[in-house]
Amino acid sequence: MKAVILAAGKGERLEPITHTRPKPFIPVLNKPLIVDIIEEIRKYVDDVVVVISPQHKDYFMKNLNNVSFVCQKEGKGTGAALKTVSSVIKEDFLLIYGDIFLGNKSIISELLREKNAILGVEVKNPKDYGVLVTNNGNLSKIIEKPDNPPSNIINGGIYKLEPDIFTFLDKISNSERGELELTDAITLMAKEKDVRVIRYRDFWLDIGKPWNLLDVNKWVLDNLSSSSNYGKVEDGVKIKGKVIIERDVEIKSGTYIEGPVYIGKGSIIGPNSYIRPYTVLVENNKVGNAVEIKESILMEGTKVPHLSYVGDSILSEDVNFGAGTLIANLRFDENEVKVNIKGRKIGSGRKKLGAIVGGHVRTGINVTILPGIKIGAYARIYPGAVVNRDVGYGEFFKP
Amino acid sequence: MKAVILAAGKGERLEPITHTRPKPFIPVLNKPLIVDIIEEIRKYVDDVVVVISPQHKDYFMKNLNNVSFVCQKEGKGTGAALKTVSSVIKEDFLLIYGDIFLGNKSIISELLREKNAILGVEVKNPKDYGVLVTNNGNLSKIIEKPDNPPSNIINGGIYKLEPDIFTFLDKISNSERGELELTDAITLMAKEKDVRVIRYRDFWLDIGKPWNLLDVNKWVLDNLSSSSNYGKVEDGVKIKGKVIIERDVEIKSGTYIEGPVYIGKGSIIGPNSYIRPYTVLVENNKVGNAVEIKESILMEGTKVPHLSYVGDSILSEDVNFGAGTLIANLRFDENEVKVNIKGRKIGSGRKKLGAIVGGHVRTGINVTILPGIKIGAYARIYPGAVVNRDVGYGEFFKP
Amino acid sequence: MKAVILAAGKGERLEPITHTRPKPFIPVLNKPLIVDIIEEIRKYVDDVVVVISPQHKDYFMKNLNNVSFVCQKEGKGTGAALKTVSSVIKEDFLLIYGDIFLGNKSIISELLREKNAILGVEVKNPKDYGVLVTNNGNLSKIIEKPDNPPSNIINGGIYKLEPDIFTFLDKISNSERGELELTDAITLMAKEKDVRVIRYRDFWLDIGKPWNLLDVNKWVLDNLSSSSNYGKVEDGVKIKGKVIIERDVEIKSGTYIEGPVYIGKGSIIGPNSYIRPYTVLVENNKVGNAVEIKESILMEGTKVPHLSYVGDSILSEDVNFGAGTLIANLRFDENEVKVNIKGRKIGSGRKKLGAIVGGHVRTGINVTILPGIKIGAYARIYPGAVVNRDVGYGEFFKP
Repeated sequence: MKAVILAAGKGERLEPITHTRPKPFIPVLNKPLIVDIIEEIRKYVDDVVVVISPQHKDYFMKNLNNVSFVCQKEGKGTGAALKTVSSVIKEDFLLIYGDIFLGNKSIISELLREKNAILGVEVKNPKDYGVLVTNNGNLSKIIEKPDNPPSNIINGGIYKLEPDIFTFLDKISNSERGELELTDAITLMAKEKDVRVIRYRDFWLDIGKPWNLLDVNKWVLDNLSSSSNYGKVEDGVKIKGKVIIERDVEIKSGTYIEGPVYIGKGSIIGPNSYIRPYTVLVENNKVGNAVEIKESILMEGTKVPHLSYVGDSILSEDVNFGAGTLIANLRFDENEVKVNIKGRKIGSGRKKLGAIVGGHVRTGINVTILPGIKIGAYARIYPGAVVNRDVGYGEFFKP
Repeated sequence: MKAVILAAGKGERLEPITHTRPKPFIPVLNKPLIVDIIEEIRKYVDDVVVVISPQHKDYFMKNLNNVSFVCQKEGKGTGAALKTVSSVIKEDFLLIYGDIFLGNKSIISELLREKNAILGVEVKNPKDYGVLVTNNGNLSKIIEKPDNPPSNIINGGIYKLEPDIFTFLDKISNSERGELELTDAITLMAKEKDVRVIRYRDFWLDIGKPWNLLDVNKWVLDNLSSSSNYGKVEDGVKIKGKVIIERDVEIKSGTYIEGPVYIGKGSIIGPNSYIRPYTVLVENNKVGNAVEIKESILMEGTKVPHLSYVGDSILSEDVNFGAGTLIANLRFDENEVKVNIKGRKIGSGRKKLGAIVGGHVRTGINVTILPGIKIGAYARIYPGAVVNRDVGYGEFFKP
Repeated sequence: MKAVILAAGKGERLEPITHTRPKPFIPVLNKPLIVDIIEEIRKYVDDVVVVISPQHKDYFMKNLNNVSFVCQKEGKGTGAALKTVSSVIKEDFLLIYGDIFLGNKSIISELLREKNAILGVEVKNPKDYGVLVTNNGNLSKIIEKPDNPPSNIINGGIYKLEPDIFTFLDKISNSERGELELTDAITLMAKEKDVRVIRYRDFWLDIGKPWNLLDVNKWVLDNLSSSSNYGKVEDGVKIKGKVIIERDVEIKSGTYIEGPVYIGKGSIIGPNSYIRPYTVLVENNKVGNAVEIKESILMEGTKVPHLSYVGDSILSEDVNFGAGTLIANLRFDENEVKVNIKGRKIGSGRKKLGAIVGGHVRTGINVTILPGIKIGAYARIYPGAVVNRDVGYGEFFKP
């Protein structure tokens, strides 16, 4: 059996993180999202076919092994993406959206027991998703983001399908937003065949917004079974709660760690750093003197070496914060922090949200970054600057 | 016997502290000034009558128990304040100004042995006060802030009086500054009756200026009899000198405390904080990572959570400092720090004086506050701002 | 035998360090450069004559004992300087330039075995120096800063000479740059007499640029034979590598020291400071809460008390950094840091170079200093200022 992963999205809503990596490579602890799901489905399938965008081809080829790639050169939408593999899919197959995180992955085996099935996730806010209308456990139809949702079961983005889905794909046309919607084909199929709805109540997240990285990593950290330490921890280090310390990590005296926290391989912490719950240091990170990191993600090679506060933020790879760089994570009015997403101010639903920083950013010393700010990859922030607006890709921000 | 406490002053000279609390409620360690004196005089009197300003009625009713209140609705000055209780004072009584701190309170018993008496405090700077002219241990008269003081004994603001003081009050008229001065009535009484002057050489302070809070708390800390610890102190905490740690306090590893220091109940300190001598954390305070507090008072619920320096300052209740907020406490020329008091620049007599911050203030991250600055209650300071002038009540200070 | 030390240079290229001390008094650990060399040559000579500039007379008289001084009142250049002592030099003598640091001082004994000799130092960048042309171990001539150096042996600034060098001095005239060049006289002498070239391959440095202080102190620290501790180190202090702790030093808990480091007498460190390799605290320094010092020199009495980062920098005597003062030591483009030397931007050859701060400077709180910046002695930097240009002697720098 084959699995098809749709991973061709541009990921604009996750910029600036996706300035330098495709969305499926956002890290869950130290593992890219797509690797996390592939490791699971390999139990059930022989081959994994990943549908990607041509612009990400090199990145995928370099960072994902033992899978085959199909470039989605034309057409928009999940339907168009699936059509790109029609030539290689001759039998029942597993279909997964590449930006989904599943807490309890064993549900996949239930899907696979059916001829055609769709994952139906119970959520509190069905309005934001494709809502499933069911009938005796079968799918009737899928309604995209209805104002008055008929149920709280939504499309979990994982299907088991027979190949004749492709015939239904040929019967549909682009939706209002100009995309070929797989869900229209599925709805069409459901009129003629049983498409079982596999109910799922565990943790599930569609990583659609930058702060969802914080949410998914928080869930994983909350569900760590135990601590582990493969690194070197000096005396005078305080560790509380569940903490994972990978190999080649060095934690210097005076460091205070409140789990759950993940410290990826090769990272150097301290002295006198303060790592607070729900912090993920993906790998080869440096957190230095008197630096406090709270509920944030530092991706590969990122360094926060001196006298900084980073709260509820995401720092992509190879970022270097000048001494004294501070991120604010709370508005004065303590309202939800809003973020510019594709030109529109979107409410994050979070009272506390810091900055979203793209890869390879350099801040000068004593930089001040306001809540919800996005800093594009390769940007430079002048020393002492107060960053009170988003900064573009490669921009040199001066006061 | 009754005690009358005059507590109707507006406390403008103690703004912004008095933006959100009447002057008598300024804290001495964790106890309001007025509670401190009431606890003492209850040894001698049955009832305490507090003369208050109508604008403070709710505050007093909510925060002071087992006393009766009389609102001073009209007239200005201590004489007018005392007249408001004339109807309830039928016998000898103890009279105390509500903004006085007495180091050695046992002196009160000496006052009470006399028919009429006034506390005569020996000071180095009599010019700033009402100076007592005495004759064989009796009061001749009181001269307000004389250029050439006849003695160094001043009016300590505590009297034992017979009720007929009220007749003398009726005989006087407003002073040049338009106030009915109790001292004029006392001077008049002293012409006809013995008013004993009870000499007092211990610590005494009229809390007239904001920095007097630092002085009075410093005296109390200097006179702590011993340390005590009812809180939770992790290993790796260094404590030197006399330190009071109240219940529900948590002190995290790496914290360094140099007494004398008072840490009020429910406060959370550390990790790696530095609390230096003469610091008072009144209660439920947070002093966080790499924060240094020196000879300052943090009132109820105030938080300085990250990478701040607070020296020789007063932070009223529920203040929250953004990460990296710094207060300067020393001028370049190292001259005395001056402070705006009721529109005039007043010398504090202190080489080191930081900021006076009103209640509920929020500073953004990386805010810089200059010496002697007053920040009004509920003000907001924009991130990265350099506060080089006083900030008004509720003002949003932007660079 | 006598030794003559030429120490009359104005040291403009070492400003602002030389705003408040003559160049020969720049510290090597806790010892002035000139004291370091005098202590060595006393093994060989009876008297030391130091040629100084009249403007430095008081400083020399106050800070250098058991030597005689001759003021160079007129003439420019090393030749003119040497001529000032012609009247007191009647026999062979040792001649040393006062701004030279010699790692292996035993070489001097080899020089002294010759009638006339010059130290020939092997270097990688001969172009920047006077290059020696030799013949069978004798000096042929000295070529100043040749584009195509005939050898990699340069003038080490140490000579053994017979008195008749003075006759050769009388035969030469000023060079193109208007200076009487000793090297012209030596070249002239070499035509008539054997001037032996004593080859030297160990560490040698002409302290010509401010950052050379960092280089020379680094070499000395690298060559410390062992650690020593004459101070008071509290528990909870972490010390790694070779560290010299002089008497009356106090190191508070939470301090983390990575040798090689030198901590001069009377210094107070901590709590929770971070001293990194190649840091020299000359004496009576204060490094306070959460302060990180990396590969820097703090001269006598200088204080960095709170929440600062100082990297690859030189702070002259009696400097006081306001809380949160930060020095940047790395350009965004990571190119070599350039420094204004006598009005020209000179490449330091260093990727990391912080600030050069003159004596008695005061920075306000939260000051930001960019790489390669020079701050003149007695300057004042306004709180929150971003110092992005050099600051003059005594200037009050405001944003």
